[in-house]
Amino acid sequence: MQHWVSMQEYEPAQLAKLVQSALRHKRGATDEASALRERILTMVFFNPSLRTRTSFEAAMLRGGGHAICLNVGGDTWKLEHRSGVVMDGPCSEHIREAAPVLSRYGDLLAVRTFAALHDPAEDAKDQVIRAFADHATVPVINMESALEHPCQGMADWMTIQEKLGSTSGRRFVLTWAPHVKALPMAVPHSAVLAAAAAGMQVTVTHPPGYELNAGILDRVAGWCALAGTELNVSTDQQTACRDADVVYVKSWGSPELYDQAERQRADFARYADWTVGTEHVGPDGILMHCLPVRRNLVIADALLDDPRSVVVDQAENRMWIQSAIINRLLEGAGSSTSSST
Amino acid sequence: MQHWVSMQEYEPAQLAKLVQSALRHKRGATDEASALRERILTMVFFNPSLRTRTSFEAAMLRGGGHAICLNVGGDTWKLEHRSGVVMDGPCSEHIREAAPVLSRYGDLLAVRTFAALHDPAEDAKDQVIRAFADHATVPVINMESALEHPCQGMADWMTIQEKLGSTSGRRFVLTWAPHVKALPMAVPHSAVLAAAAAGMQVTVTHPPGYELNAGILDRVAGWCALAGTELNVSTDQQTACRDADVVYVKSWGSPELYDQAERQRADFARYADWTVGTEHVGPDGILMHCLPVRRNLVIADALLDDPRSVVVDQAENRMWIQSAIINRLLEGAGSSTSSST
Amino acid sequence: MQHWVSMQEYEPAQLAKLVQSALRHKRGATDEASALRERILTMVFFNPSLRTRTSFEAAMLRGGGHAICLNVGGDTWKLEHRSGVVMDGPCSEHIREAAPVLSRYGDLLAVRTFAALHDPAEDAKDQVIRAFADHATVPVINMESALEHPCQGMADWMTIQEKLGSTSGRRFVLTWAPHVKALPMAVPHSAVLAAAAAGMQVTVTHPPGYELNAGILDRVAGWCALAGTELNVSTDQQTACRDADVVYVKSWGSPELYDQAERQRADFARYADWTVGTEHVGPDGILMHCLPVRRNLVIADALLDDPRSVVVDQAENRMWIQSAIINRLLEGAGSSTSSST
Repeated sequence: MQHWVSMQEYEPAQLAKLVQSALRHKRGATDEASALRERILTMVFFNPSLRTRTSFEAAMLRGGGHAICLNVGGDTWKLEHRSGVVMDGPCSEHIREAAPVLSRYGDLLAVRTFAALHDPAEDAKDQVIRAFADHATVPVINMESALEHPCQGMADWMTIQEKLGSTSGRRFVLTWAPHVKALPMAVPHSAVLAAAAAGMQVTVTHPPGYELNAGILDRVAGWCALAGTELNVSTDQQTACRDADVVYVKSWGSPELYDQAERQRADFARYADWTVGTEHVGPDGILMHCLPVRRNLVIADALLDDPRSVVVDQAENRMWIQSAIINRLLEGAGSSTSSST
Repeated sequence: MQHWVSMQEYEPAQLAKLVQSALRHKRGATDEASALRERILTMVFFNPSLRTRTSFEAAMLRGGGHAICLNVGGDTWKLEHRSGVVMDGPCSEHIREAAPVLSRYGDLLAVRTFAALHDPAEDAKDQVIRAFADHATVPVINMESALEHPCQGMADWMTIQEKLGSTSGRRFVLTWAPHVKALPMAVPHSAVLAAAAAGMQVTVTHPPGYELNAGILDRVAGWCALAGTELNVSTDQQTACRDADVVYVKSWGSPELYDQAERQRADFARYADWTVGTEHVGPDGILMHCLPVRRNLVIADALLDDPRSVVVDQAENRMWIQSAIINRLLEGAGSSTSSST
Repeated sequence: MQHWVSMQEYEPAQLAKLVQSALRHKRGATDEASALRERILTMVFFNPSLRTRTSFEAAMLRGGGHAICLNVGGDTWKLEHRSGVVMDGPCSEHIREAAPVLSRYGDLLAVRTFAALHDPAEDAKDQVIRAFADHATVPVINMESALEHPCQGMADWMTIQEKLGSTSGRRFVLTWAPHVKALPMAVPHSAVLAAAAAGMQVTVTHPPGYELNAGILDRVAGWCALAGTELNVSTDQQTACRDADVVYVKSWGSPELYDQAERQRADFARYADWTVGTEHVGPDGILMHCLPVRRNLVIADALLDDPRSVVVDQAENRMWIQSAIINRLLEGAGSSTSSST
């Protein structure tokens, strides 16, 4: 069983092929989505979604398939993922049942489950998506888990390829930005994984205390080395952004301040000047963000409304790259469930 | 870019064509929905819906297309529509991003966003649906906004045409009714706009303090003048309903009592005898209501269960008129997004 | 108008035919779902769902049809079902309008509405699903009502047939199990109805105070008599399970303790040793449960992970039997709504 849970389970060359497939599909090559016809994608959302839900459903529909969308709610419905526990708490179902059952109805299973942001070590284990992958009998797709958002990272790579014409050796800078509440690290993790796999020079810049997951950074460094580039981490935003081909902006919370909302808020205020503006992006650079973005807090209006901003293209490319990923997973899986054909 | 945001942006003759198209389609003319095939309608609900959601999705499915339904919740998720603000409040995304992004996934964008009922002047600006129309790159459909519910108004027109055989010169009476809480004016606004555009004599009757939006009434008076009919506003329900061909019932809140739930409730009690019964509709008249309706508070059981009630037909006709509107918008837009054909 | 509201409205022989149809369909006979093509199922959920929603939507999609899923929420949106009341309370719409309106958009209407668990006599009337059946103009499907869950019962029957090769004369034991909160009786009711209709020896075992609905048990006894078998009710779980071919586990609340959460919880604790384990199922027996199941509270891990557990097959068979039920209802109804064919 092949899943799409983590970019780290693929080689950079395999990932590059997915980007090429998505670009061909976007330009009109319909055979790049031929495996989607009559197939059913079952999506399970533990957290809300606008782009992810719509882009996945649109990808399936455009390919002649279908999507079933389950909003299992946030706090009200919980699925147990731990083994051996007596389930007398808030969880009324175990993933050991939910994953194989949902595998019987459709051809693929997609799951969104955010980081809990209580304990970085727990989040790093990515247990919920891993439990789905362990117990599903169809391919499982990560629609953002505690640790990674690989569909976003791949859409980012595709967008850079499209906008800059090439990625190899280009300067990619991920910069932290302030917010009003702590957000997970899945997006920044996948952004730098994608940048490294694409052969870019990778710089990460954030204030002290906002370090990304060490295992992810190791993999990024390894992929950079493979491509002959380097990973740099810096707390000097201005220097880091200078001469960047890509300025990728994202806010995330400090692991040291998890469960301390007031102190986190104060820390955001302390670094208020990290808000990214037109001065951070050179004349030939591009501005990226995964959306949703809080205007004038994370990124200034003037930059978001500037032609250098490619944030809407990033969002559109979610649909194309997801179609390529699904197509690849289905090519590797069995025959259609549809009895109607 | 042509949108379906307000009936006021169309000429009565254009609206009449939509009604004729919907009637032909209902009678079996499938070419009236031929542009829907393989198309995707993305629906964004800021407020709950039973009929609207189902009738739109059914219209797309029956035409061979698809609908994606996003329930973005009521209080929990808010989209910013104001320009230039620092987004450090409850809104995590701006319509400047949401509208163009959703435009990339599907062929049309439909939005439901009720009036806030705090400040009549704010509601009259209809800012949320306007912001979607400004920033979307596909046609935007109003599924009820602060000011209008144009799909409902058109379904009402279609139903009158169907039931009475003609609309020109017929007597249309919109009567207010009591309730337990203040409701928006979008439905009554669209009902009288449709009645005027259809060439009917229009009477609005409500207690003092329940005046409809003045700009809407101006447009209604203008369309009446164009058709050689008249708009009358009265606080005498019984006289107003006498000899009516159509008695259209709807409750709405008093703008003078917005944010004063207790005083509004007392005012409803004061006008408890405005509940509409069989005595308000003549033997050849028809009873209309947009639904949902609170029985024996807004309209008496005996009238709702009477053959003169056409409320279920009104609801069905939502599907047919929306199909006609979508067909018209797509004929005016670009080619299909679907890569599967 | 033929509905699927209660197994009691069908003869055992008619139900057996549905099981045979579903089994043929599962083995690849696509004509068993031919009536689903281009049809629309409208699903109305007053309570949450994972399996039911997904299995119904997948059944429709696999048959070339479509499903529209309305989550009308739990406490927030209520539909009135009583006649003649003044609707000045929490209900904003009456089923007298909702059912006929939704009948105009699609070809079938499916409704989930759990027992209120306040008054057993009220629950026994099954008023909400009955009101939908009375007022709809298309076939109504019970997706679990206050009294029955007939799709689950039929899926259970299909699974036993599949696993044991035959049902006639086999020993079926329904055993109660502890939980943390009172659950409805719809599933146990339908399980024993199905077992009796399938010609099995039926035993129900539960602690004192957990008696199932007397009318349901009368019907079970009648069907058993018809098949030459017997219904037994016992408070001795161990003896009841001995030599069972099927051990069907389910927790439900005591009608004597409705609205007394603390006393119910204490009663569950008192019967903690009713948790079902490997010792309750013989070497050739099978373990059944409708899911979701709380592991190590209702059923022990060791049994759920044992090859004798068929709970995932039960869940899959929901899809196949529902497809057969829908096919049957549509064959008995009018022609397709779809204008696109």
